[in-house]
Amino acid sequence: MTKKDFNELALKMHEENLGKVSIQSKVGVSTKDDLSTAYTPGVAAPCLKIKENKDDVYKYTCKSNMVAVVSDGTAVLGLGNIGASASIPVMEGKSILFKEFAGVDAFPICVDTMDIDEIVRTVKLISPVFGGINLEDINSPRCIEIENRLKEELDIPVFHDDQHGTAIIVSAGIINAAKLAGKKIEDLEIVINGAGSAGMAIAKMLLNLNVKDIVLCDINGALSSKSEGLNWAQKEMLAVTNKNDQDGKLADIVKGKDVFIGVSAPKMLTKEMVATMAEKSIVFAMANPTPEIFPDEAKEGGAFIVGTGRSDFPNQVNNVLAFPGIFRGALDVRASEINEEMKVAAAYAIAGIIKDDELTTEFVLPDAFDPRVGQEVSAAVAKAARETGVARI
Amino acid sequence: MTKKDFNELALKMHEENLGKVSIQSKVGVSTKDDLSTAYTPGVAAPCLKIKENKDDVYKYTCKSNMVAVVSDGTAVLGLGNIGASASIPVMEGKSILFKEFAGVDAFPICVDTMDIDEIVRTVKLISPVFGGINLEDINSPRCIEIENRLKEELDIPVFHDDQHGTAIIVSAGIINAAKLAGKKIEDLEIVINGAGSAGMAIAKMLLNLNVKDIVLCDINGALSSKSEGLNWAQKEMLAVTNKNDQDGKLADIVKGKDVFIGVSAPKMLTKEMVATMAEKSIVFAMANPTPEIFPDEAKEGGAFIVGTGRSDFPNQVNNVLAFPGIFRGALDVRASEINEEMKVAAAYAIAGIIKDDELTTEFVLPDAFDPRVGQEVSAAVAKAARETGVARI
Repeated sequence: MTKKDFNELALKMHEENLGKVSIQSKVGVSTKDDLSTAYTPGVAAPCLKIKENKDDVYKYTCKSNMVAVVSDGTAVLGLGNIGASASIPVMEGKSILFKEFAGVDAFPICVDTMDIDEIVRTVKLISPVFGGINLEDINSPRCIEIENRLKEELDIPVFHDDQHGTAIIVSAGIINAAKLAGKKIEDLEIVINGAGSAGMAIAKMLLNLNVKDIVLCDINGALSSKSEGLNWAQKEMLAVTNKNDQDGKLADIVKGKDVFIGVSAPKMLTKEMVATMAEKSIVFAMANPTPEIFPDEAKEGGAFIVGTGRSDFPNQVNNVLAFPGIFRGALDVRASEINEEMKVAAAYAIAGIIKDDELTTEFVLPDAFDPRVGQEVSAAVAKAARETGVARI
Repeated sequence: MTKKDFNELALKMHEENLGKVSIQSKVGVSTKDDLSTAYTPGVAAPCLKIKENKDDVYKYTCKSNMVAVVSDGTAVLGLGNIGASASIPVMEGKSILFKEFAGVDAFPICVDTMDIDEIVRTVKLISPVFGGINLEDINSPRCIEIENRLKEELDIPVFHDDQHGTAIIVSAGIINAAKLAGKKIEDLEIVINGAGSAGMAIAKMLLNLNVKDIVLCDINGALSSKSEGLNWAQKEMLAVTNKNDQDGKLADIVKGKDVFIGVSAPKMLTKEMVATMAEKSIVFAMANPTPEIFPDEAKEGGAFIVGTGRSDFPNQVNNVLAFPGIFRGALDVRASEINEEMKVAAAYAIAGIIKDDELTTEFVLPDAFDPRVGQEVSAAVAKAARETGVARI
């Protein structure tokens, strides 16, 4: 189906159902006794338990399984800053994916301000009912600051999916691609085109996988000591990447690299550029809907393995592989945060779904609907949370 | 069953289900095409429609049927200020009653601050996804200020149920009780014991029903020109009540009155005091769980009709008779507010459920589970919204 068809189908689906999220009662209320148990006078009992012991909020309320999908609508899909109201369909969509893929209850919170202090304060003030916060479609570098501040202020997991979800799945793809290419992770030299929040999160994640070196590029070329106008987050990232202080345009930087990762714009990479990469090169071109390079062109240029964000090509980097299982695992052990170890565990769990004898250049990432994905990711994340001491049960 | 039994049942229910509210998807997501319709790339289409025309948020999102149940936990049931987290079970309970009784989706928003400015600002900032705001269990007179300010700032219905829900149902009870007693509404002289937000809301509502006079009492007796320490809301109310500027204790004030309404504390009214009331007196004693007077005592004192807040006595003033249908009606016509006319319409609709030949002194208010209640209330509220020009569809 074309994109246009999906637009029409989507308008029909959203109009006929008046959105996608509804509220369901987990208990029946059909008699006076039901009413007296679910509501007054009985409901006073769990209230008092929570008043006496704050942790009982996990025992008696929906908090234990409830995630807020929070956006200010400043970076929605590829549509840019369309505002809080116009972002609701995406946040509702994310909410139902949490439920369908991992049984996590999630509710859309679209905050009608761009003020960072106000967003942080609002999320904090409404956090009692939530066991986790999934940040979504907030522009960069504001999203990084908002995430960092919320992590500091809250004792529940805070996770910006556009950064970390993408980073985890690309990492999983690279783990499997390197295996197929016969390369060691720690030998990989990588270029990331796109130095926004997603590019930086991918870089951070890959450093945690111990890759050899990463050069981040933006529209002006490599982030190096010669770069001007970098924001605080980019400066922090530069300090731990580009060991040889390479400068130049993407076409120069990509030469000899093992991996190209694109989180930038359509058609930034040509087959001629791919031809200059190392043997058995790996390309993840995730600009949506038009990638940095189409798979057939990349292959013509000599790429060994190509992934994109699209469902109509092999090796789709689909965030639904990660976020449902990650929150499932974090909620299951009442983790106080989602730390780097948990993210790395998620990446290896996703990669591990595909057994060695199933791995092919067109199958380095599992199918989004493979029911093992959510299970394996949540189990790995819960285990990592326990091992790093952030699990509370 | 005793209250203690309900406490035990409630703890069991809440623990086994981990609260009461869950999120449900209104659409299926079991294929890649489903994913492309409910999420990317299709979801961009409704986003863009809303960006172009803000009102389309009602067409394509859950806003059209979604209410926030908002509390700061400062006046939860009879438990007082127990905080936002401990209030969650009540707000979840309210949320599921919205769904079970009127098909309204409702979500608990428990705001972790007592600062009025912050509460107002928070609710406003997260309002894009909500079609209405139900305020709950906020102490007085803060609740009145919060409601007034939110009404001013938002173009969706804002309704503090503890005030107006109770007022509407008591009014319905009095409409039917007066009919049985052969008295005209406009001849009724009424005393309200309890000068908090509920008492004041009841007074306001009864004035809109054109009763003859109302005297509000607090622990010190009648609110009169001699009263000291009244808050701004009480002063406003005094200006339109107690026409004869009566002063004195409740025992003095209740003499000769047609109606006693209690929203105060246990055992404030004695049968001796009831005996001094007018012929065919009407008593609504709503302190919970122990009323101002028990029905048998009130009857011994000569009361003609007695109602309480309890389900184990006749004529229960149960808020579930009002709020689900009121929001159903308001949402159905996309009302910009819930005005006085809509509340009066709701009171007459609730009263009207019981036909003249069914009315008895023990049956002036319909059963909470009578399926006609929600239907009649929502229809009457929608009609009143249209007639007063606040309906938008």
